[in-house]
Amino acid sequence: MTTLIKKARRGVISEEFKQVAESEGLTPEYICRGVAEGRIVVTKNAARKEVIEPLGIGEGLRVKVNANIGTSTEIHDLELEKRKAKIAIEAGTDSIMDLSTGGEINAIRRKLLETAPIAFGTVPIYQAAIEARSKKGAIIHMTEDDMFRSVEKHAKDGVDFVTVHCGVTRESVESLIRQKRLMGIVSRGGTFLTAWIKYNGEENPLYKNFDYLLEIAREYDVTLSLGDGLRPGCIHDATDKPQVQELIILGDLVDRAREAGVQSMIEGPGHIPLNQIEANVRLEKTICKNAPFYVLGPIITDVAPGYDHIVGAIGGAFAALSGADFLCYVTPAEHIALPEPNDVKEGVIVTKIAAHAADLVRRREASNWDYEMSRARADLNWEKQFELALDPKKIRTVRSERSPKKVTEVCTMCGEFCAIKMLKQYIRAEH
Amino acid sequence: MTTLIKKARRGVISEEFKQVAESEGLTPEYICRGVAEGRIVVTKNAARKEVIEPLGIGEGLRVKVNANIGTSTEIHDLELEKRKAKIAIEAGTDSIMDLSTGGEINAIRRKLLETAPIAFGTVPIYQAAIEARSKKGAIIHMTEDDMFRSVEKHAKDGVDFVTVHCGVTRESVESLIRQKRLMGIVSRGGTFLTAWIKYNGEENPLYKNFDYLLEIAREYDVTLSLGDGLRPGCIHDATDKPQVQELIILGDLVDRAREAGVQSMIEGPGHIPLNQIEANVRLEKTICKNAPFYVLGPIITDVAPGYDHIVGAIGGAFAALSGADFLCYVTPAEHIALPEPNDVKEGVIVTKIAAHAADLVRRREASNWDYEMSRARADLNWEKQFELALDPKKIRTVRSERSPKKVTEVCTMCGEFCAIKMLKQYIRAEH
Repeated sequence: MTTLIKKARRGVISEEFKQVAESEGLTPEYICRGVAEGRIVVTKNAARKEVIEPLGIGEGLRVKVNANIGTSTEIHDLELEKRKAKIAIEAGTDSIMDLSTGGEINAIRRKLLETAPIAFGTVPIYQAAIEARSKKGAIIHMTEDDMFRSVEKHAKDGVDFVTVHCGVTRESVESLIRQKRLMGIVSRGGTFLTAWIKYNGEENPLYKNFDYLLEIAREYDVTLSLGDGLRPGCIHDATDKPQVQELIILGDLVDRAREAGVQSMIEGPGHIPLNQIEANVRLEKTICKNAPFYVLGPIITDVAPGYDHIVGAIGGAFAALSGADFLCYVTPAEHIALPEPNDVKEGVIVTKIAAHAADLVRRREASNWDYEMSRARADLNWEKQFELALDPKKIRTVRSERSPKKVTEVCTMCGEFCAIKMLKQYIRAEH
Repeated sequence: MTTLIKKARRGVISEEFKQVAESEGLTPEYICRGVAEGRIVVTKNAARKEVIEPLGIGEGLRVKVNANIGTSTEIHDLELEKRKAKIAIEAGTDSIMDLSTGGEINAIRRKLLETAPIAFGTVPIYQAAIEARSKKGAIIHMTEDDMFRSVEKHAKDGVDFVTVHCGVTRESVESLIRQKRLMGIVSRGGTFLTAWIKYNGEENPLYKNFDYLLEIAREYDVTLSLGDGLRPGCIHDATDKPQVQELIILGDLVDRAREAGVQSMIEGPGHIPLNQIEANVRLEKTICKNAPFYVLGPIITDVAPGYDHIVGAIGGAFAALSGADFLCYVTPAEHIALPEPNDVKEGVIVTKIAAHAADLVRRREASNWDYEMSRARADLNWEKQFELALDPKKIRTVRSERSPKKVTEVCTMCGEFCAIKMLKQYIRAEH
């Protein structure tokens, strides 16, 4: 199949590049060149049934936000997941990943693809592991065939990007064991594959037969999101040898994906203290030759369960400022429970704050929004502030429930001593 | 009066230095030297009636968090403010500032001093302005005497640190007018004084008679928090000439305060994009000779009213990582309404996250907390996680309302496919 990256290399400006260019305010040529060089991915499965806008991720583009939804073995309710998908979209997520591991996961995935006509990702190894467990008694009994069949099934369903933990290899697992980490592995996919490698004494099929994976990806033009199965799961384990060992392996695979005409991006940590984030981004950009960097959080402290969306937003802002391109949200439920719809909303909103704060620095035109909001604020134009707010509902609700009684143009914070009002009265009036 | 900074210069290890040293895990000599050189302030009014721990702020110390409470002309309810003070303390704030501008502000301040036996700050110019307005019809009619009398009254009541906008001068106000800012001034104190200067055509008394201010401060050993009346109020105005002009003036006043035996710190912006925060901190540290830097936020984007606590926490983490010492919280109500008790709690918690994330980098021992939490997580020891969490109530509530039904040791997020559980089962078991 003539994939987007192959077209880009030949300088063919496809419709997808035009659409991304339009939404980013850039030229189609810029997008085309970025895709050709692997600095940008444009995710869109050629078999996707729903009409969707292709999503551009990477250098020079707006920082994107992903929301993870999906069932677990404890809670599996398709309607709940559909609600989460809708709420995430309403809050402004750029993509959704279905991480379901409970219930009828084929049906759930297909329904969510319909419910969420935006860029859509999955982690096919979950399905292979779950089916091995239910049919053969344990995840370690999944076969090579099970793994690739899952990837192909998801690709056929129209999934735009898939996480594949190809960097969990005998080598990186040995590094992990030598490291004696505090938290070991916190990636589910990483644990499945590590257990599989250890039990079967064989190499990770997704690594060993990476060419076969590339064939499947190429057939549907699926973007590979090369997963960080060995990401650090706590501050103490951050930026250690197994993490970097895995990244080096992924760097080789990026080269091979590009050669094969398959787009790829890299998933990143994890739990990382503030002063290591920039180094992590630099490392990814050099080792993986500027492939787009997709970070989870990062989580910058372990002590705030219940507030990990904020912990992740702080990390995400640092990462995006340093060059990360795609921020996976974290919700307030992280480390405690499966997210509920309100967690999903909070997660998307705060991650969008982080992304936009970095965009203000990365893209001059991003500040127009802030300029307009500030002008509305300086004019005490509340209706305009409502319209422009990242979450119009929230500001409108707070303002209407707590509106001033005496001086209605201001707010209850400063009342008549509102600096903006005084400024108009005493200073601007003179000019 | 023999103030703490005078004692420090003579090498006298006062009881206050010992207490700060103890709580910071440092030597009293370190605190003493820091105070002597003005890199650390130890705030404690000699006339404070309540028994309080002196608060150390500055180089090498834990990053501190302040919560602003107080009435407005729209909402003035002493009981509400007392509740806010208690909630802020319960959430772990290091200090409280009473910014009341409505109701019986003398009585409110005195009650809050009793309610909050921790470091306590105020902005005395509010009182001078409010009284001028009620007695003489307009804030611009306040006299020099009114201003200094307010400062003295607060000092006498035991307030530990006072914000004084001494850098709003004829010179900086002229710079402001030339600048044609989008948002003008957003500091209430800054607006009062700018209006006063423009109307009366005279110099700011707090600047002109700074020596008199120093006399009052010295008498009660009050720490001066040199306010940023001209801080930028939107991203568009960040790091502009009037802001820096004011900082230069404050730098001179720091020198004079040190000479006079008065401790001082510097208040900082404001609305600042991510890539200007480090420069702002460096600038303060050089121009003000390493005086502790007390930042409000900073707010890193204007577009998220309703979530400005998070916007401020992201900015605060960057600032503290760059060297800021004291973070003033921002609440979800910022730019919309007077904070309610729950806003206060959220504000303190997220600002503590920012402070701790920076502490992880600034102070090696800060990571012990994260280490213990990660160990509890690796052990699936929930009770221990509850105990260690920044907000134990929140994690306990989420966990109890959304506890797993099938496999009780994990959580509903991953259910039986919990990476930690699988790791124990498949990998750790082998060793």
